[in-house]
Amino acid sequence: MINKQKNTPKNQLVIYGRHAVLSALKNPKRKKIKLLCTKDVADEVRQYNPQIADRKEIDKLLPPDSVHQGFALICAELENPSLEDIIDASKTLDKCHVLILDQVTDPQNIGAIIRSAVAFNTLALIVQDKNSPSETGSMAKASAGMIEYLPIVRVTNLSRAIEKLKDADFWTIGMDGYAKTELANLKKGGKTAIIMGSEGKGMRRLVEENCDITIKLPMNEKVESLNVATAAAIVLYEINKD
Amino acid sequence: MINKQKNTPKNQLVIYGRHAVLSALKNPKRKKIKLLCTKDVADEVRQYNPQIADRKEIDKLLPPDSVHQGFALICAELENPSLEDIIDASKTLDKCHVLILDQVTDPQNIGAIIRSAVAFNTLALIVQDKNSPSETGSMAKASAGMIEYLPIVRVTNLSRAIEKLKDADFWTIGMDGYAKTELANLKKGGKTAIIMGSEGKGMRRLVEENCDITIKLPMNEKVESLNVATAAAIVLYEINKD
Repeated sequence: MINKQKNTPKNQLVIYGRHAVLSALKNPKRKKIKLLCTKDVADEVRQYNPQIADRKEIDKLLPPDSVHQGFALICAELENPSLEDIIDASKTLDKCHVLILDQVTDPQNIGAIIRSAVAFNTLALIVQDKNSPSETGSMAKASAGMIEYLPIVRVTNLSRAIEKLKDADFWTIGMDGYAKTELANLKKGGKTAIIMGSEGKGMRRLVEENCDITIKLPMNEKVESLNVATAAAIVLYEINKD
Repeated sequence: MINKQKNTPKNQLVIYGRHAVLSALKNPKRKKIKLLCTKDVADEVRQYNPQIADRKEIDKLLPPDSVHQGFALICAELENPSLEDIIDASKTLDKCHVLILDQVTDPQNIGAIIRSAVAFNTLALIVQDKNSPSETGSMAKASAGMIEYLPIVRVTNLSRAIEKLKDADFWTIGMDGYAKTELANLKKGGKTAIIMGSEGKGMRRLVEENCDITIKLPMNEKVESLNVATAAAIVLYEINKD
């Protein structure tokens, strides 16, 4: 558990920003503890009985320079489904995909990835518990509130999770800048698990060896790599397309 | 000209961060004024005669909390080619594309878009002079140094620029969340100009009316829109692919 927000007990977080807070308020699975807002925006959330606060009181709950737009929601983290729950859900589907992140740690990148994952119908995000930050307000904000819609599975061992997905008929595709196959040449359809490593370091070797295939994005050689959230958006778009 | 860095004369900027500075140093078209670096990283740029500085001296040149990694380069902005230069360059090509941004103002987003544009072989970025920030250090950093490789054209009137591109056989495609055609169904090839508006507001009506066609990304209805840099990356990937 890294990147926890300050002043919040375990398993709690402060969601902030208009989109992220409105989205959390509409989520019946999100346990709300206290809603704070400034007077000027209170009408938008009147039905949720907000406590009116001034801008500085909200600032104090958040990391410096957080752009909260007058909205803050103290709430509990969402419950994480198990990998088995996701595999069960996949059984009724002819076509679906999940995204596995290996050691991607930046909450902003993870939030941006969550937004793309919901846009492109990803069934679940799978991360390794010990290397992946728990939910944060900045992650919820970077997801534009889409964190409310994406099941996030936290596993102890990624390689074992990949094995289980293979057993459940998932085709496992690792993203790797040095791969020989290009994304567009990949036969799509069926069930797929996409595995992405961190920008720079990529996937760990043990994780990579577990993939059925590795693929790369076709890119001009001047560019070493794309930002992990950008690369994820392109891959999810392509996998969702056909 | 908005978002200028503090303490820098007109047409100058401070590029910072390892990737961005190394990339600028290698660009013969980038006029260098002074290279500063901390002692611990000096070996990497020894050949460019750096002036050794301590971390705080570099901090002072930059906006608060800029992650400079010990590298700062005071330099001149790159020269902007004219639209006619780009049209001339396109004449020798069977297939090419340019990207037009209408009122996208955030330097971080523009930097991220530049990185994707270089990755996917975009011929030039075209922006409206009065609504688009000039080069900044944060833009160069968000581009991971790729700003050195992308011609950026600044025009007075975007609608007129679109007309000129049409006259030069460019097919003009506007991105619009409410369009009827999906990106993947678009016939590609030849010369294309992609036009994107700001997140939320989209293109201005006059600009949109000038497009040959408008298209959207296929997305789950829960997601109102993608971040403009994410959407740009997907479109540029798709246009570059075939």
